[in-house]
Amino acid sequence: MKNAYIVIEGLEGAGKTTAINTVVKTLNQSGIQDITFTREPGGTPLAEKLRELIKQGIRGEKVTDKAELLILYAARVQLIETIIKPALDAGKWVVGDRHDLSSQAYQGGGRGIDRQLMKSLRDLVLGEFKPALTLYLDITPELGLQRARARGELDRIEKESLAFFERTRARYIELASADETILTIDASQDIEDVQQDIRQTLQQWLTK
Amino acid sequence: MKNAYIVIEGLEGAGKTTAINTVVKTLNQSGIQDITFTREPGGTPLAEKLRELIKQGIRGEKVTDKAELLILYAARVQLIETIIKPALDAGKWVVGDRHDLSSQAYQGGGRGIDRQLMKSLRDLVLGEFKPALTLYLDITPELGLQRARARGELDRIEKESLAFFERTRARYIELASADETILTIDASQDIEDVQQDIRQTLQQWLTK
Repeated sequence: MKNAYIVIEGLEGAGKTTAINTVVKTLNQSGIQDITFTREPGGTPLAEKLRELIKQGIRGEKVTDKAELLILYAARVQLIETIIKPALDAGKWVVGDRHDLSSQAYQGGGRGIDRQLMKSLRDLVLGEFKPALTLYLDITPELGLQRARARGELDRIEKESLAFFERTRARYIELASADETILTIDASQDIEDVQQDIRQTLQQWLTK
Repeated sequence: MKNAYIVIEGLEGAGKTTAINTVVKTLNQSGIQDITFTREPGGTPLAEKLRELIKQGIRGEKVTDKAELLILYAARVQLIETIIKPALDAGKWVVGDRHDLSSQAYQGGGRGIDRQLMKSLRDLVLGEFKPALTLYLDITPELGLQRARARGELDRIEKESLAFFERTRARYIELASADETILTIDASQDIEDVQQDIRQTLQQWLTK
């Protein structure tokens, strides 16, 4: 089948890293070897600098919601134009750790940025570009944050309130249910069962 | 009269710094003492970090036009929300070294970013916000760059081709002629004459 851009999405602690490994193994087993990896925000030197600004914030300065959103889109458009599109054009598969759905969920849902602004900005900046497949790892904030905390220190985003992550998850679920290119995985299961679900879902999608 | 936001605009080497000094002296002579200064891109710790990324670029990575534009708007919205609007709300005057007109001229005119995208992004991010007065210092790129070079090293933007600055100046002139809040100063004159023009133009505007 034709190469494509596949994205893994979900709250902190949903298990995205493990999921990416499972996706790659499954692709490999289908004979797909030439895979480019991306993560957002980040994935290019400029975008990684922007990621740092977003993740760590600036000492004593609150990053406004709109500035955060625009920085995320700057990083995203840089990644799409310099890494993702060239890789797809070269016939490679691209597997991404987060993409635009994260902004829709975190900034749109979590921060409550106006829906029309979210939609207009995405249309303006990204146009028709979107992943062929998104695997959304659904997990409750309680469980996700418990897992994330076990990993070590929390960054600026991860220190948000539980209510923030509830709003983020609600937007993820809403958008996943309205878009047939987003497939939901129950990430609250045991890790083996999550991997099994990802494998089956992806294999089924690949043979469509 | 009521406090306001006044912006100085123009190509590299147009004499913005001298112009700002003249504006401040003229405001002082009219009894206005409490003035906040801004510069763009920059003016807050976050926005200054973004300015560095734009001005110096990233070693080996071309900053795409759209990423540059979004970073500029991120810095702008951060400056407006955390510095300019609070200062205006507190009754202060604000004098700015560049604002949105620079993006319209450099990114819209110079880089040739689509007009509709430029307009939509501005409307989306800034809404109705704009300076009460903009003084546009008009100069030919030849003369401006000659002056800028005399100051020392050129940054990434200043290394653009002469054609880039011709397009930028053309857009400045076009937008200034269509907006009565933008007043044009002939910055190719001797410095004393430029200062005299700024003083007179501003005094006239203040007594309107």
